[in-house]
This record gives sequence, C-alpha cells and structure tokens, in this order.
Amino acid sequence: MRVVVVGAGLAGLSAAKELVASGAEVVVLEARDRVGGRMMGGSIAGHPIELGGTWIGEGHERMYALVDELGLQTFPTWNDEGELLIELGRKQRRMASRKGAIPRLNPIALADLAQGLTRFGRLARSINPATPWTHPDAIRLDSQTFETWIQRNVRSGKGRAYFHAVAEALFSADARDISLLHVLAYVAGSGDLETMIAVDQGAQKDRVVGGSVLIPERLAASLDVRLGSPVASVVQDGAGAAVITRAGERFEADRVVVTLPPTLTGRLRYEPLMPPWRDQLTQQVPAGTVAKVFASYPTPFWRGKGLNGQAVSDAGPVKVTFDVSPPGAEIGVLIGFVEGGEARRWQRLDPAERRRQAIDGFVRYFGTEAASPTEYLEQDWSAEEFSRGCYGAHFAPGVLTDYGDILREPVGRIHWAGAEYAVEWAGYMEGAVLSGRDVAREVLAANK
Amino acid sequence: MRVVVVGAGLAGLSAAKELVASGAEVVVLEARDRVGGRMMGGSIAGHPIELGGTWIGEGHERMYALVDELGLQTFPTWNDEGELLIELGRKQRRMASRKGAIPRLNPIALADLAQGLTRFGRLARSINPATPWTHPDAIRLDSQTFETWIQRNVRSGKGRAYFHAVAEALFSADARDISLLHVLAYVAGSGDLETMIAVDQGAQKDRVVGGSVLIPERLAASLDVRLGSPVASVVQDGAGAAVITRAGERFEADRVVVTLPPTLTGRLRYEPLMPPWRDQLTQQVPAGTVAKVFASYPTPFWRGKGLNGQAVSDAGPVKVTFDVSPPGAEIGVLIGFVEGGEARRWQRLDPAERRRQAIDGFVRYFGTEAASPTEYLEQDWSAEEFSRGCYGAHFAPGVLTDYGDILREPVGRIHWAGAEYAVEWAGYMEGAVLSGRDVAREVLAANK
Repeated sequence: MRVVVVGAGLAGLSAAKELVASGAEVVVLEARDRVGGRMMGGSIAGHPIELGGTWIGEGHERMYALVDELGLQTFPTWNDEGELLIELGRKQRRMASRKGAIPRLNPIALADLAQGLTRFGRLARSINPATPWTHPDAIRLDSQTFETWIQRNVRSGKGRAYFHAVAEALFSADARDISLLHVLAYVAGSGDLETMIAVDQGAQKDRVVGGSVLIPERLAASLDVRLGSPVASVVQDGAGAAVITRAGERFEADRVVVTLPPTLTGRLRYEPLMPPWRDQLTQQVPAGTVAKVFASYPTPFWRGKGLNGQAVSDAGPVKVTFDVSPPGAEIGVLIGFVEGGEARRWQRLDPAERRRQAIDGFVRYFGTEAASPTEYLEQDWSAEEFSRGCYGAHFAPGVLTDYGDILREPVGRIHWAGAEYAVEWAGYMEGAVLSGRDVAREVLAANK
Repeated sequence: MRVVVVGAGLAGLSAAKELVASGAEVVVLEARDRVGGRMMGGSIAGHPIELGGTWIGEGHERMYALVDELGLQTFPTWNDEGELLIELGRKQRRMASRKGAIPRLNPIALADLAQGLTRFGRLARSINPATPWTHPDAIRLDSQTFETWIQRNVRSGKGRAYFHAVAEALFSADARDISLLHVLAYVAGSGDLETMIAVDQGAQKDRVVGGSVLIPERLAASLDVRLGSPVASVVQDGAGAAVITRAGERFEADRVVVTLPPTLTGRLRYEPLMPPWRDQLTQQVPAGTVAKVFASYPTPFWRGKGLNGQAVSDAGPVKVTFDVSPPGAEIGVLIGFVEGGEARRWQRLDPAERRRQAIDGFVRYFGTEAASPTEYLEQDWSAEEFSRGCYGAHFAPGVLTDYGDILREPVGRIHWAGAEYAVEWAGYMEGAVLSGRDVAREVLAANK
C-alpha cells in the first residue's frame, strides 16, 4: 500500500512511522523547510528554546515513551524553588505552584471559585469526549458560550478571572468564543482541569533536553519526508488517489492522510469536491490566537527574589509566564504568552510597541531587572502560513452538535489526523501522537 | 487605473460598472461559466425560476432603481389571495400574510411573544449596524448566542419557535450558532425584523419578470467579464498588484476587488501573506447552510383551498414555503427552504430520501395533491464550490467585537466587497449592490 501523508508535524510523522512499520510505502509531504509543524526549535542567547509545543507531563504516557525510545531525556520545569506570582486587579500575591492550589482570595471569592470548580468538574465528568454530542443535554450545553456558563455559575470577579484565564490557557481564545460543550469535552478528554493547567503533577511538568523539536526531527530521520512541498490539491477516484504539490509534483497513493489544522484542510482543493458538510465544518473550526515572547537575561534574577518565574495575571497582554532557562546554564530566560483577545489586539501593534508591552509585563511581575533583556524574541503562530494559529482549534456554539460526528470521518481515500482530532489530550503533543497512531490503524483497516 | 474584480456576482458587477463609469479599465474574473454568483437562473416545467437570490422588497431602493434602469419589470410575490399556513407542534392554523402579523396563539404565548419582539426591537434599535462593536454593551451582547437570549427572554415554546424561525430565515443557521450582537446588528442594518421577514410591505414583496438572474446578466453585458477563470492567488507590492488564475493567466492591476464570500477569501493565496488578523477573521465567518427545493404541479392547487402557498412550520426539513408560480402560466410551483441545522442533516441523506422528506412537507401543508410533482429540483448552496453556503455569513460570539473593525478594511491594494460587507441589508441583493458601489468609491479614493 502506498500512503501520502500531508504534513510532517507530530501527528503526520507518528502516522507515517506506524504505517511504515506495517509495510506501507509512505511519503510525507511537508510545506515548510523543516519538520515539526507547531513544534519548532529556536535559540536565544545561544541556547535552544521551543517556539512552539514545549511541555509534556502527567497523563502523557505516549510522549514519555516516545522520548525514551528516541534516546532523549526530560528535565523538570522550573517550579518548586520559589513561588508563583498571582496578579488580580493589579494586586499581587504569591503562592506555591502546586496542582489544584487556589490563590488566597477573600472567603467569599474563594467559596465562589471552589463551587464553580466543583460544578464545572462534575459537568465535565458527565461528558464522553469521543462523542460529546450524544450527551443527553448536548444541545443545551452547545447552545451557550463558556462565558455564559461563567456568568451564571461564578459570581465573584476573581472567580470569573480564574475561568477566563483557563479559557485563554487551554484554547488561546476567550471564553466567549467557545461552546461550553467543547470546553467540557476538551477537559474530559484530558482528565481534569487541575492537571491540564498545572506544572506540579500536571501537563507542564517536564521539558525535553535540547528542545522538544528533537522529537519530530528524530522521528523524521528514518522516513521519506519531502520538505518545501506545500500541497495544492488531492484527487481521488475508485482506483486510487494522488496528491499534487503547488509546484506540480504528483504523488500517487492508495490512501492519503491530511494532518493540517482543520481550518487549513478547507484551503486545499479536492477532486471530487469535499461534500458540503465537511466543507462547512472546516469553515467553523478556527485556530486559536497566540504569540510567545521570550526574553533572556544574564541570570534568572527572579529566583533570588523567591519567585519561580511563573506569573498569572488578569492584565494583558502577557498574562502567563514561565521560567524556561536552559538547564545548567547561567542565563535566565522568561517566556510570556499572549493569548486569545490579547493576541488579537497585540499583534496589530507595531513591533516596538509589541515589545514594550510584553516587557512591561515581565517588569511588573519580576522587577525592573526585566526591563533590559539581552535578547527578545516573538513567535506569532497566527502569522504562520502553514499553521495560521495555535494551539488547537476551538468550536463555537452549535458546531459540535451539528458537525462533531464527521470531524474524524474519512472522505473516500482521505483520512484526517492532527492534535485537534484526538479524543484524549486534543491540542497537546500527546494528542497529536495518539491521533497519528489512530489514523494509521484506520488506514490499514480501510485498505484490507 | 486598472482594476481586477474577482467574482461576477452582484457586488462585483456593481463595483465594475461604477469603476468603468469613472474611467477605470476593469476586468472581472469569474470562476464559474456564468455570472450572478448566488443569483442563478434555472427552469422548472419550462419556466424560469430562481435557484438563488429571488426577492426584492421594502427598503431595496437601489434594487428597484437598478431593475428599472436595466429595462426589467417586477411583479408582486403571490401573497394576498389566500392565507398563510402556520404549523406549530403539528397543529395547523391559517392567517392573512400581513407584515407584523402574529399567529393566533393562546393569550399567554401571545403576550410572551409580543414582549419578546418588543425587547428585541428595542435592543436592535440601540445598535449602530456600521460599528456594532462600539455599543456600550457590545462585549456582553457578543458573549452570548442568540439562543441564550431567546431562552432568557422568551418563555413559551411557541414564542421561542418564532425566534428560531427568524434565525433560520435570516441566517440559514440556528439561533445557537450566532452571536446575539450579530443578529441585532444585522436587523438594525435592514430596518426592522418585521420588514425583513414579510412579503406584504416586506423584503419578499416583489420578483423580477423572467428571473432575477437577468439583473447580473444585463449588468455584465457591457463589462469585460472572463468566465471560467477561477482565481488562485493575488500578489501585490508597492508598485502594483496582479491576480493569477488557476490556469496561470496573470492580470495586472493597480487595485484588486475581491468579492468572494469572506470564508472563501481565506482560500486564495496572497503574496505577501494576509496579516494574521485578516486570516483569522476568515476562519470565523462561516456561510449559512441552505438548500432550496422546487416542485411543479399542473396547477397551483393550493390556491383553490384558500392558501397562498406560504407555510411556516417548526417541523423540518422544509420549514418555509412560498408560491413561486410563473406569472401568467397555468402551472403551479412551490419553493421550500431547508435551512440551518435542518439542511445539515438533510444534505447527508441519499437523494431519494431527501426528495421524500421535502415532498412530505409540501403534502403536510397543502394536501395530497402535492405528493406527485411534475418536476422536482434541489439546489444546495453549500455544495457549490464557489459559494460554499448561502445566504450570507454569520458571526459566532466574540468574532464581531474582536474582528468586526477589520472586516471591510482593505489590505494594501486589495479591497473587499460582497453582500456580507454591506452595512445596510447585508446578505441581501440590495446589500450586494450597496457594497459594490461603496468599494468602487473606496478604490477610486485610494488611487488618488
């Protein structure tokens, strides 16, 4: 069997590896001049950093096994030494960065938030993440935004700020952009909210020595990957399929696996045309909006102040930071996330103003030493032609109940994969690997 | 000045006509082998019908003037002789089809609906349709779906059914798919809800003798329109722009006007790339889902039963019908609309089952004579490669407030037009003409 995989991200490479292991002839076509997709290596002050997907953690069993298999090592995210900074209403507090920990709020806000988290958790546990549209209350849950749920179920400003931060961190979109049902299904597929957002015992627990991009690079080493080969169209008929690049190269196949983000799959041309429901689906799965900003300093000076480099704030544009200093080096590196609505405003500013606002956040959280980084970098994922957003896709109200069941459904000889298609850990590297392996099995079964 | 207009729908042709009148050299590139875009002629039982945009009415001053200027005539939609059929909860009632008329419901449902309409109207009048995101309450109104508003403000099942029907009729989407702010702005831009949905003194008042497609056909007659020329990419730099077709033909221009539905503008390639905000916008403006079904009969037999061929039902898939019989002929023709969620389910059925369900509706409304049409036709607009949906685009929550201000903003030498871009009567033929004329002025001003 011949298979063409479109996209050399983690899903595409994982699919290709499984297919090759099962005896298929596989060509991976990659638009960029590098592999990795939304995993991308960079460097700051001479040290490797992750411009895209960075962390693995609790529940990411496939990723840990893969890292091991590829001869790579992990190291813990800088977390335990020093405290997390919380900024709400311009008032700063510190707390240990522990899974499930809640900031010290006044008793009323605390009770409100605790009750909101309990209600949310109970609702999420009632959802089957593989088929959220089959929930008895699916229509009602998919008829409202996450924001509507927050307004109804959380009364305090600080409690609401917590849930807003959750929406931004998980979807790089605002709570008003997303269907409640999608938020619930997304969390249900990853276990629980507390694990998803935590470093300690959470999804951000570990990093890969040398950078996470080594994973796709090593995976690709034994595969037939054609870089710089953006695909223009996919054709199929009863006898077979072919993938044609923008440059006009044609690759024949029995099956095709398209691993682009769902919204970008709508931009390829298909012969025959995609059926109307699949086309309409791709009109309604926007990618999140997120930029990462990095600043390097001679030392991780915040550590000397009892801070661990992590900040969470309700004031943008940078509302979340981490210490991503290279292990064993003297320098300190901060990463800041600009997510959702913040990113949509920030990205329209001129570069100097963008930098000023980003650095301002670092200074507010960690002090004036942050004002003069030795290097500063930005990575806006919605500006990338072949991603057009990160981390994953979100569903507005109504989309999951009307289109959810066709998301993963192959169209003839064309199969779909990518982190967005995973039932578990959708939108994470773990989900990408899972989806790639699942689609490989699907392709093998379909070709019998 | 040289201008390339992409798309020979009503907006593109209107723009081209204005530009030519101002001395520009204009080429219109049309992907299809016909002009008209979402206006399309067809025939049933040997008589012309409209497979796309059909009616003009109250408030469509530009359209009436254009019809006149092109030497065409209008005739009234069949309305006054006979009653409208209302079916709610499988119970049928009849009423005169009059603007603002409300079905005879029980007093509680009637009061509930009347109050809902009053509240909705008051809220809509507070919105500036050109800049809805500047409303003092914009964020709150854009944080919820229209469905959330209905659930909160309308209590009776029949009152809610009325508003659901409104969402489907205006957006060919369900109330849960759409931001409340967008519904309000859309209605504010067209005057009032009652006019929009009415035949009598409403937007469906008149039809064009010979079919509405004569409008774009006559407009195109004096223009340089290249049919069968789907565009692949648009390039621009400081010196000029060029539009390149899929076949590789290149058209140089000073300015380019792209009149595709917003979601399809995201599928063209641009050099330089679209800025991230514009690309993300195009990921979030899905087209509605609607199919039209037509059935012809030896006579308009429903007229003999005191019915005017109009039905509104809460049971799908065909929830709305009209009498579109050719004037002066003996035969009768019914049109049925399958909209929103109904269309999304119906379009996945096999053709025989689709027809059976559609005809079932006609039988339920008008009697067993409807069971055996002399001809039956379907037109699913989401299956059309170069429309991928109808009538217009809808905005999910959060999109208008974060992206509304860039919708109409040119990107360098590229300008945007189409019914979706109109401030008044967006999504109607009137809006398409308005948008085309506005963009012509914008292009002329930009080139000074």
